[in-house]
Amino acid sequence: MKNLHVIKVGGAVINDPLQLDHLLKGISRLAEPFILVHGGGRKVNEWLRKLDLQVNMVDGRRITDGPTLELAVMNYAGSLNKQIVSTLQRYGNNACGLSGADMDCIRAVKRVHPTIDFGYVGDVVHINHKSFSMLIDHDITPVCCAITHDGKGQLLNTNADTIASEISRALAPFYNVNLWFGFEKVGVLEDVNDESSVVKHLTKGSYLKMLADEKIHDGMKPKLHNCISALESGVRTVHICNVEGLLGIPKSAGTKITLK
Amino acid sequence: MKNLHVIKVGGAVINDPLQLDHLLKGISRLAEPFILVHGGGRKVNEWLRKLDLQVNMVDGRRITDGPTLELAVMNYAGSLNKQIVSTLQRYGNNACGLSGADMDCIRAVKRVHPTIDFGYVGDVVHINHKSFSMLIDHDITPVCCAITHDGKGQLLNTNADTIASEISRALAPFYNVNLWFGFEKVGVLEDVNDESSVVKHLTKGSYLKMLADEKIHDGMKPKLHNCISALESGVRTVHICNVEGLLGIPKSAGTKITLK
Repeated sequence: MKNLHVIKVGGAVINDPLQLDHLLKGISRLAEPFILVHGGGRKVNEWLRKLDLQVNMVDGRRITDGPTLELAVMNYAGSLNKQIVSTLQRYGNNACGLSGADMDCIRAVKRVHPTIDFGYVGDVVHINHKSFSMLIDHDITPVCCAITHDGKGQLLNTNADTIASEISRALAPFYNVNLWFGFEKVGVLEDVNDESSVVKHLTKGSYLKMLADEKIHDGMKPKLHNCISALESGVRTVHICNVEGLLGIPKSAGTKITLK
Repeated sequence: MKNLHVIKVGGAVINDPLQLDHLLKGISRLAEPFILVHGGGRKVNEWLRKLDLQVNMVDGRRITDGPTLELAVMNYAGSLNKQIVSTLQRYGNNACGLSGADMDCIRAVKRVHPTIDFGYVGDVVHINHKSFSMLIDHDITPVCCAITHDGKGQLLNTNADTIASEISRALAPFYNVNLWFGFEKVGVLEDVNDESSVVKHLTKGSYLKMLADEKIHDGMKPKLHNCISALESGVRTVHICNVEGLLGIPKSAGTKITLK
């Protein structure tokens, strides 16, 4: 099986045009195929403020009402996705931007919650692995934004980390999938205030031990849970690292997570 | 060779959600493959007004400055393109939205004019026919917005009629291409005030005669010039018709234009 890298880049890189350009220039030269998944950064909040609209949050989670969804689609699937694709093209990488509606590649259902109405937020139910394989087999790099659809004409806002994990799991039977989460820190830290305390290798066992010892920062728990779950579905390795780590792909960087 | 329809839908349909849905539902059932090219409608002007920005026009043509380009990308490649794609998906048609940057499918150069600076307006220089063929061969419907790129990382605003013509010409060696321009009138009219005066069939010869007799409305001249030029490059037929005409594809409707 061919190697495939699924690379998720988050808010901090997206918000910094120079760093984003630097990253895209670097990964455009990757010898092995990859899929890029990008978060949205702070653009939607900036637009909501510009239009005097409210940023709705409940328990630290965004509520996607109608105007927020429209701005998310305009920013994530529109300006941001096309900026990334045209930059990759500039650096000689034949990229193709995708929302979940394009080629029906990511289908989701509107989230139902007993007490909170999250609005137009979608939970992934199906990845169309054939759409991704077709592009990869033609040396085209899929670039996914965090917009999905429900198959009934409704677009939905979906977490980019989840999209990266779900794509990785769905493609694991066909490729040696390595999943990379780019974030602000150099990796998972033993001491959140000490950048030199990176955990170089984490297994399911050592993760559960750190969890029991209360050594995992609250903010990292859902991310790491996601990673372990991806590994259990056949993904080979997961890495959590910063931009410099992503620039070194396929060389291991930050925290490498494997099942055993 | 397979038949292929290139269908351009313009502003009036785009501005009317019910009519757009009706059209997409209808063409989603087309038995033969098609490429949809859509204009932008009035959304960008609405957004410019909402943001207290100027709509810049010189000689009736839009000047695309930086903020206008950003809004064009957000609206055309973002909200509008994804709404069309998700609606086609709803009706069972496996659509894929594209800007010119995606799969490098439409490359353009920034327009240089001796006296007017049009800003970020692009003239098409290359259509990547392989990208379109790959999708069509996989029963995927390309849905193109009027945003192109220059291959150096710059997105550009391009006329949707031109995009439809250029795609048709580039695919003519590989398919029997029929180009359809949807617009407000039932077809080319002998008398612009009389909807029953449709010219059912126009050839290059009869077009030149009408032109010499000053029977062609000024607004129709560039459109018809475009049509004749497409036919000279190997496109089989061009039709100019309204939404009802598009809903009848492949049945001839409105004004059918052929070389002879």
